[in-house]
This record gives sequence, C-alpha cells and structure tokens, in this order.
Amino acid sequence: MLIVMDSHASAAQADAVCKEVTAMGLTAHPMPGAQRTAIGITGNKRAVDASRIEQMPGVARVIHVTAPYKLVSREFHEEDTLVNINGVKIGGNNFAIMAGPCAIESAEQIDEIAGILKKQGAHILRGGAFKPRTSPYSFQGLGEDGLKLLQAAGKKHGMPVVTEAIDKETLDLVVRYTDIVQIGARNMQNFSLLRHAGRCGKPILLKRGMSATLEELLMAAEYIVNEGNADVILCERGVRTFADHTRNTLDLSAIPFVQRNCHLPIIADPSHGTGRRDKVIPLSCASVAAGADGLMIEVHTHPDSALSDGPQSLFPGQFEDLVKQVTAIANVVGRKLN
Amino acid sequence: MLIVMDSHASAAQADAVCKEVTAMGLTAHPMPGAQRTAIGITGNKRAVDASRIEQMPGVARVIHVTAPYKLVSREFHEEDTLVNINGVKIGGNNFAIMAGPCAIESAEQIDEIAGILKKQGAHILRGGAFKPRTSPYSFQGLGEDGLKLLQAAGKKHGMPVVTEAIDKETLDLVVRYTDIVQIGARNMQNFSLLRHAGRCGKPILLKRGMSATLEELLMAAEYIVNEGNADVILCERGVRTFADHTRNTLDLSAIPFVQRNCHLPIIADPSHGTGRRDKVIPLSCASVAAGADGLMIEVHTHPDSALSDGPQSLFPGQFEDLVKQVTAIANVVGRKLN
Amino acid sequence: MLIVMDSHASAAQADAVCKEVTAMGLTAHPMPGAQRTAIGITGNKRAVDASRIEQMPGVARVIHVTAPYKLVSREFHEEDTLVNINGVKIGGNNFAIMAGPCAIESAEQIDEIAGILKKQGAHILRGGAFKPRTSPYSFQGLGEDGLKLLQAAGKKHGMPVVTEAIDKETLDLVVRYTDIVQIGARNMQNFSLLRHAGRCGKPILLKRGMSATLEELLMAAEYIVNEGNADVILCERGVRTFADHTRNTLDLSAIPFVQRNCHLPIIADPSHGTGRRDKVIPLSCASVAAGADGLMIEVHTHPDSALSDGPQSLFPGQFEDLVKQVTAIANVVGRKLN
Amino acid sequence: MLIVMDSHASAAQADAVCKEVTAMGLTAHPMPGAQRTAIGITGNKRAVDASRIEQMPGVARVIHVTAPYKLVSREFHEEDTLVNINGVKIGGNNFAIMAGPCAIESAEQIDEIAGILKKQGAHILRGGAFKPRTSPYSFQGLGEDGLKLLQAAGKKHGMPVVTEAIDKETLDLVVRYTDIVQIGARNMQNFSLLRHAGRCGKPILLKRGMSATLEELLMAAEYIVNEGNADVILCERGVRTFADHTRNTLDLSAIPFVQRNCHLPIIADPSHGTGRRDKVIPLSCASVAAGADGLMIEVHTHPDSALSDGPQSLFPGQFEDLVKQVTAIANVVGRKLN
Repeated sequence: MLIVMDSHASAAQADAVCKEVTAMGLTAHPMPGAQRTAIGITGNKRAVDASRIEQMPGVARVIHVTAPYKLVSREFHEEDTLVNINGVKIGGNNFAIMAGPCAIESAEQIDEIAGILKKQGAHILRGGAFKPRTSPYSFQGLGEDGLKLLQAAGKKHGMPVVTEAIDKETLDLVVRYTDIVQIGARNMQNFSLLRHAGRCGKPILLKRGMSATLEELLMAAEYIVNEGNADVILCERGVRTFADHTRNTLDLSAIPFVQRNCHLPIIADPSHGTGRRDKVIPLSCASVAAGADGLMIEVHTHPDSALSDGPQSLFPGQFEDLVKQVTAIANVVGRKLN
Repeated sequence: MLIVMDSHASAAQADAVCKEVTAMGLTAHPMPGAQRTAIGITGNKRAVDASRIEQMPGVARVIHVTAPYKLVSREFHEEDTLVNINGVKIGGNNFAIMAGPCAIESAEQIDEIAGILKKQGAHILRGGAFKPRTSPYSFQGLGEDGLKLLQAAGKKHGMPVVTEAIDKETLDLVVRYTDIVQIGARNMQNFSLLRHAGRCGKPILLKRGMSATLEELLMAAEYIVNEGNADVILCERGVRTFADHTRNTLDLSAIPFVQRNCHLPIIADPSHGTGRRDKVIPLSCASVAAGADGLMIEVHTHPDSALSDGPQSLFPGQFEDLVKQVTAIANVVGRKLN
Repeated sequence: MLIVMDSHASAAQADAVCKEVTAMGLTAHPMPGAQRTAIGITGNKRAVDASRIEQMPGVARVIHVTAPYKLVSREFHEEDTLVNINGVKIGGNNFAIMAGPCAIESAEQIDEIAGILKKQGAHILRGGAFKPRTSPYSFQGLGEDGLKLLQAAGKKHGMPVVTEAIDKETLDLVVRYTDIVQIGARNMQNFSLLRHAGRCGKPILLKRGMSATLEELLMAAEYIVNEGNADVILCERGVRTFADHTRNTLDLSAIPFVQRNCHLPIIADPSHGTGRRDKVIPLSCASVAAGADGLMIEVHTHPDSALSDGPQSLFPGQFEDLVKQVTAIANVVGRKLN
Repeated sequence: MLIVMDSHASAAQADAVCKEVTAMGLTAHPMPGAQRTAIGITGNKRAVDASRIEQMPGVARVIHVTAPYKLVSREFHEEDTLVNINGVKIGGNNFAIMAGPCAIESAEQIDEIAGILKKQGAHILRGGAFKPRTSPYSFQGLGEDGLKLLQAAGKKHGMPVVTEAIDKETLDLVVRYTDIVQIGARNMQNFSLLRHAGRCGKPILLKRGMSATLEELLMAAEYIVNEGNADVILCERGVRTFADHTRNTLDLSAIPFVQRNCHLPIIADPSHGTGRRDKVIPLSCASVAAGADGLMIEVHTHPDSALSDGPQSLFPGQFEDLVKQVTAIANVVGRKLN
C-alpha cells in the first residue's frame, strides 16, 4: 500500500498518517519528495481497510498494491480447483460443455433437446426456470414445474443439470432439484444471494456482471467461498460497451487473467456474450483457444418459436459442428473433454 | 414495429411473417424494396413480445418503434407524478434534498448529523443500515439496530428517512422503520426485489444501475408500478465508463430524457456519481440546472473516520454552501424547495 | 513513482532496479514487505520515462504518483490562463458563448444567422468549412470559400470567428481567415496536427476525443503549449458510452477536474455532447452551473434543411432562451459574461 | 429506411415528408398506426443522406435499415478480397503473421530481430518509425532513418515490411520505403489521411479506432477504397472499456461481423489489444480460432531496454511458441499459413 500526500500537506499531517499506520500494526516508510511526500506501507498480511487513512487530512490518495481477494487467489491456493459434478469435471485440464435452451418450456421440449444434446456431446444440461427479464410483460419461466422437468430430463439422459436462482426462495428450490446453481450477471453483486449460495451445499456457476471488473468478479466469488463453499465456477458472458454489432462484448482476456490470479475454473458463454447465432461458433472456438475450462451454449430445437432469447440459440445441427470444432481446438491447447 | 427481412429471404418467408402478425391481432404492411422487403406493423396498443417473430426464417431484425414501458410513460400518464413523503414533496416543481452519512454508525453520529443537516436545509435524512459492499471483509452496516437509530433521529429532527433494502428480509424491516425504501444500483435488475417493492406500500427510490440504459431503468420502474405502487422516485447516480478521473460518470442528460418520456420524478446523486468530495458541489449545481427534482448527498461530521465512502462525503460546512448555491439555481430554473 | 516488484522477484533483481534508478539521477527507497518488495522513487523534477524500468526483470508494475503533464498543470502555473480573442475573454471568471451553424452553407445563411446571434448575445461565431464526416458521401464543407464567408460575417457583425482545421493544409488556411483554430475530437491525438497548432500563432480550441481520458486531453494540450502556444481552450463535448438515449454522454465532472489540475480554460459543447435539440438547453445550464468558462452551441435558422447535424441545432428562438437562462445561472456561480 | 413520426405530428406533416421522399426519387409507404404514423421508404439503390428528412417538422426519428458502406460491403462484392504483398497473401483462406518491434531503434536491433523472426515463421516485418505518443516527451521514432533501416532489414531477410504513417508528409515517405502503409487507431477517422492513403498506390493496414463502431471502421475503409485503392486490410486492436485488467478489450466478435458484411481481410493485434505480454499468446490463439486472416505481434529481442511498449512485447522464445500454437489452430479452422 502506498499513501500519497497532497503537495500542500504539512509535515504534521504526514506524521499523523504514519502514527495511524503504526496503530494499525503496520510499518510506515515515509519518502519525502521534491513535490510531495509518499508513505509506503508494509507488514499487511491480509486485506487492509484503507478508508480510515484515505480520509485523513492531507492524504491525496491511497494506492493498493496487493489484490483485495484472498481465498480465491492463486497466492493463497496455488493448485487449480477442480469442480466435480457427478463425475463431470471442470477445471485443471478438464473441459465441459453445458448446453440447452434458454428457458424450459415443456416436458417434450426439454426431453427432446436433452436427448439430442447428449448424443452430440454435451456434458451438462442447462435450461432456465426462473428468468430475469427486462420487461415484466415477458415470459418469466415455469418456476418449480420447470425445475422438475429439468431434473427429469437430466436423469433420463444422464446429464447433471444447471439453472439460475434469482433470490433466496428460488435458490432453495434450485438446490433441491439441480446439480449446479447459477447466479446470473444481474445478481453478481446481490451480496445477500451470494451469501446464501455460499451455504447451499451445491456448486455455483457465477456469471460476470455486465460492467463488472475482474476484481469485482473475484470479490463476488470471495463472498461465496468465505461462507464455506469452495466449488465456484466463474463465467465470462460479455460486458457492456459502446459497440453495437453484438449484444455484449465478450472479453476473452478475462480467461488468462483469472487463470493467473485465481484458482477457480472459468468458462465462457458466447451465446449471451454475442447475442447472435452466427457469432456463437467462432467465439466458442476463440474461447477454447484462449484457455476456457468450458462453454455454456444455448441450443433450441425450434428457435423460431422459443419463448426467450431465440436469436442467439443454435440449431442442433450447428451445435454438432460446434462440438467438433471445439474438440479439435481443445486438443491443440491441451484440454481434455469429459 | 418494423420487421426487416434478410436480403435473401423468399416471398414465402415474408408471407409467413405477415400471417403470424395477423394471427397476433396486428396489421402487416409489406414493403418490397430493391434489396429486401420490410414489413411495417401497426395496431399494437401495448407492448408486443416480438421474440417469436425475430426467430422466423428470413427475418433479419425487428425494430421497435414505440417504447416498451407503458405505466411509467408520459404517453400513458401526461401529468407529473408528485411523491409526497409526510409533507415533503418531490416532483412537479417541488425540489427536495436528501442528505446524511453513507452508513449509520452510532446513535450519537446519526443524531448529531441529523440535527446539523435539518438546520442547514436538508429535507430528508439518509443513512445506510444494510450496505452492499464489494468486499465481504468491509463493514456491512448495523442492520435493524441502524434502522432504529435512523428512525429515532428522523423523528427527533422532523425529517422523513430513507435507507436501502437489499433483499426481501431487509425490505420488510426497512418498510417498518422508514419512509422511503431505496433500491440500490446493484439491485436495479433484481426483479424479485422490485416486485416486493411494488407491494410494500412505501415510496421507492430506484437508482439507475451502473451500466443500465434508461429504457432498462424505466422498465425496472415498470415492475414496481405494475405491482400497484405508483410512488417511485428515480435516481441518476453515475454510470461506468472508461473515464478514470471520477468513480462514475454522472449522466445528466438522463434528467431531461426521463422528464420527457416518463411522469416519475428524478433526482441526482453527485456523491456516488463522482466519488470525490471536491466534485460534489459543482455537479450538484449542474444537476439542479439540468432540471433534477432533488438531490441525494452524503455528509459526514467526521469523514476522516467514516466506516464507508468517506472520500466522497461532504463536511457540514460544505453542505451549507451546497444548499445555498443549489437554492439560488433552483430559483433560476423554476423549482420550489420544500 | 513507486515500483512494485513481483512476489517471486529476487533480491538481485531489486538491487538492479535501484541501480538503474540511481543511474537516472533519482533516489530509490527500497521497502521489503511480507509478500513483495516495493521501491519508492523521489527526486524527479519533471516527467520520467519509466518504460525502461517497467521492463526490467522482476518488476511487476510501475505506479505514477505525479501527473505526466507539466506546462499545462496548476502546479507549474497557479493562475488561471485567460485567453483574449480580440477583446472577448475566456477564462478566469470570464464566460463566453460561441454559436453558429454546424456548417457554413452560403453567404446568406452565415450572414443571417450571425446577425441574429450577435443580437441575442453570442460572443463568438462558429461555423464549419472543413467537416470531418463519417461517410465519404456526406457534405464535406465549402472549404476556403466557407472561410471567406465566415470571416466576412464575423467582421460585419463584430464577432471573432472559430472553425475547425483537419490537417496541415487546412490549418494554414484557417489561421489566415479566422481568430480561433478548432482541433476536433477525432484529431485530439493527431500529434502532427497538434504540433502545427502549437506553432500557428492563433488561439486553439481543443476538443476532448470521444474516448479520451482527461490525462490524455491534458497531454494533447501539452503538445500545443510545448511548441510555444499557451492560448489553448479545452472543450468537453461528450464521450462514448453504452448509453443510447443521447449521441454522446456529456461528462461534466471534467470541468472541475480540469480547473483543479490545469490552468487552461474549459468550455462545454452540449450540442455534440447530447446530439439532440431538446437536451441542449438543460445541459447548457448544467455546464455553466458546473463551472464551465464558456459554451459552444449549434444554431441554425432553418435546421430542417441544414446540410449537417440538423437534429442537434437550436432554432434562434431557443438560443435566445438559452442565453437568458445561462446568464442567470452564470450570475449565481460568479461568472462574468463578456 | 423507416421514418417514425412524432405521436403529436399532424397529417399535413406526414404528407410533407412523403412529398419530400418522392422528390428524392424514392417511394413512400405511409402506415398510420394507433399512436403514430410510420413511413417506410423503398427504392434507394445507394446510401441516402437522411439529414434533410430528420429535420422536418413532426419527424421523431429516421431508422436506417441498410448499411451506409457500399464499396467495401459483401452485397457489392461477394468474393473475399485477397491482398498480395510481394507474394505474401492475406485474405481468402490465406493467413499471415506480421511481427517485429514496436519501434525501430537501430540497424543492429532491427536486423537481429528480423533474422530471428523470419526463421521462426513470421511473414511480414513490422517496426515503427513515426510513433504517435501520448506524451510529447516520449521517444517519437527515428523517422526516415528508421524507414531505411526497416527496408534494409526486410530486403536482407526476405520479408515485406509495414509501418505507420501519421500525416501526409510521413505517408509519402512510408510509401517510398515500405510495402504496406499502416493507419493507426488514433487516425482511423483522420479523413484527410484516409484520402491520401486511397491514392498512394500501396496496400493499407487500417486499425480500428479505440472507440470506433464497426460501421465507422467500414466507413473509414470506404474512404480509402472510394479513392481507388482496393487493397485494404482491417485490424482489430482492442477498444476502450471500463475494464482495467488489460490496456484495451480485444473485441473478437469484430472478426465474424466483418467477414459476413465486408469482403476485406481482417487481422488481429493482441499485443495492443491486451497491452500485456502474458495475454498475447492466448489471445492470438483465440483470434485465429475466431477466423482472423492474420496477426500482428510485437516482439523484441531485449524488451527490457525497448524504447516503447516493452511490457507487451514477446521475447523471441515466446514468439516461437506462438507460431506453433497458432499454426495448429489455423489448420483446425481451415486457414493456410503463407
């Protein structure tokens, strides 16, 4: 940590800061300069809440040198975390593909698509039962009935299932019926939900918020791990920028950044990350090449009549192509498909 | 609504789209062009879920001409909504200032600051009891104890109080002790919480999300109003951009946009909108000049030892200056302070 | 400057960095910490090119504590710079309004509008002769003929004139015919043009680039001042964000930031900053309230038939309202209109 | 094109718009709706300048259905453009790697690195002689001397060379000594320079601006092609966002978008696109997997003492790894290395 004093700060103000630092059990290294004094801080073994110092008279700013996340950091835990969902592994060199419709619509729909996807190489079945929708007038999902259909389809076709929870009530339900609990982008900083997720006993798929920095994503994961749940899978799903040719801008540099600084696995969601069907295959290939530990892909047997997010859903034939290309690239970059 | 067909779309595909439109009870106006066919749609009296059409073969894209929000729109309700909180009015030409510390820290702290603010001209007392914090290791607020302290300070000094709720449980508590319920930026699209807010019986202060479009903000308000709660105050609090000289970029054009398209009042929060004490007064003046219906300002008697957000909190003397300048500008732009 | 060593860096690597720092004539203050070593640097009286150190083995990153701009900084020159253009003053407490059509279209057009604007209170006449247009098929301006018309209209109605130069050739022409040379947003980092502007002998109006940080804006101004031209007026004209209700997002916090860190005057351009006529008056008022030293406003007598940027041009009657409101607010915030 | 009338627009205003459309040689299709009238336009065979209509009374907005770029569009020219630089091919299925130091520093430096890169599989040698630098105090390149050194190194080692021009003067020099002229991100909308580039007789490498939409990138290419130069290679080099873990956010969805809508080749620059050495290899692999027609990579034999952009330059050993991995992925996605 480095404290930069204002150019007009007095020597007494710098002294007061040094005393406060000492009082916090840390060591202050004052460096008087030509224009201003800076004070280096050492001795902090964990995150320091610097807000007290930031507000002392004469302090211009406080620069943090070490990351604020601890439990999820590589420094704390050098080995890759490997999340094992009923035998399907994500992390280390293990690569998994999650696929399914945006929303569960009927028993026939989810059963048909699950059968196709399993045959084509998907490892985990996805499908929304509680849909966070921008408009109150849009289809909001089948709720608990949807969860039952998802569970049944997963069992019949031998795939673990994942779906989103949007509050404490739905989290309890999702935990009961499924294998992985998704926390969506809009809830990445719903800290109340994150804490519940940390105590729910099931692996969590945590999506990056639409304008979240990676530090914020890792801090959100820290909330979950801090409650005792170490099985967290991160997901890059695109961020919001000025660019208007896609719904979001998929930030693939997140993958090597996370893998260098954090031990949790990270997958990519090119369906939401682009919002357009014709971009999903190239960006899936790119995600794997960048080192992703998995993919989450929307597929619909009849995207023409899907109740949500149809324009970004692949047709089953396209998904088959995707699996082929992705498998070939995974081999090149040393990933092992489940 | 305008449907643009792909340049390679067949006549049969365009026909199928027209039939689907007719089946939805709307009127289709096909316009064959040199390169492609477009189909205009009329007859929709309320929002149409276009996802079914977007996914039909040959459809390139669907362009929405009318806004998707209804209950909150000016077209639906021409008059300004005036929210009256125990006699303090916001909206129409009525202007109110909410002020207080970021977090409630103790009985003495909130009582002292409330007394000062009341004397200096604040109309509503703010203070956080449930703080959404990026880090699980930061101070998270005093919880229900904080609510009691806030209620007591408000009563003693004759000011309605506002504080944030972060989930259903805290919403129930906040409703019990306070006069306005705040939904924070991170929860703007927590649709579960929005629905509860719509049924809670208290006015709602809804903050714009960090990367929310104004259409999304108005749709979030629509969720609340759609549950029967018409007392919603919107709040511009800055959005996330590449700019690094402030914590957020305060988007003051939101104010005239909202006022033209929506009947709800809108206030500005220059404290979070800039994140820096020395920017709060100029941006408060700018907000009023742009037409804001109110301000929300962080003030702390001892920002040096504040437990959160100290660097953006004004000193009481600065708040006094702010009220003076803001009052003068409010007079110029025709706003009436409570 | 602070050098942060990698957590795996050796003592020999830290030593090598300290030696390099000493060789640069600076003083190194090594601070060995629990996890890593940091090295504080003092003694730099001007900007240091740190790239050499950034690349030394074991260096994790270099943190700059002081700003890289010098000649334009408040630390270098405490007093406000006051730019005087034939008697019209900008800076200090002096406030000026620049107004006119986006593009000069004919002698009649520029003469008519100039006459109206002068009477309504504009101080400086603007109008484009060389237009940077996104499309090669759009109207690109009247060129030198336009400059002559602008000069004539300015002389006849007693107003200094400003117009944009887009390369060395047009800069030479603009200098010949006008009083202020504008460098547009798209050319803010056209360093070749900035250097020519620094030697041209006329005041420069430098617009912020669409995604420029304020540090970059001030560095662009530094290029001009470094060539000997101290008469630079900065202009906030909106930046590019995800927001889609305006063409750009006007970042008014730029005004207090620049005024605190730099001695040059800064004006605002709400016409380009919003791109929509109905937002221009509220955002003009907001700009003045935030402390701007002037405004640049597009006005057109017949915006219906304007050859460029019509949708953001005010009608003359609207401009008259704007001047009234802006004058009242300028009085409140202590600015003196020319 | 679709014209949306204001909900308060009169029938006479809609009529006037229809007449104006007819006067422009186009066909108007009025569609009176419940809330407002929309007017569809057909018959436009090329881009229409809609600004005249946008400004007519009663017009709410004009929606463009077809793209404004023509010469660079797939609709105009279905086949891939293949740029051939002295036998090195880019476009179609041909993939090329450009590599070299950020800046040319000496005869020894550029000769040594060129020899290494050629042996390791680079096809084109890059190196800057005119450097656009944020600070006037940073190294600005060797100028014409640098061009001579670059030309000599390219000839000796059998590689075409590419370097950046920043204005008309340097363009003339770059054309004389090199094989490809680069227009950098900061000059993407320097329309004066684009026009000169269109008449210079050499292939152009056009980089996307830091906050340019893809439509703007293609319009910039349209400027060049419109002057008669059809040999344009586009380059995705990252855009500016709120994300702070990389210098820019590489937007790989640009690659499939450009390839679908435009016939020009597009390469990626992961060195500038991330700004960090350890992200260059994963993002290079991702770029190829997304379908890029080539890569531009910074490599330096001694990045520790590089005069610019050292932190993002690969070491030669890393470049060798990159070529191996990229080659394997290129094979998978059906690209043929030169």
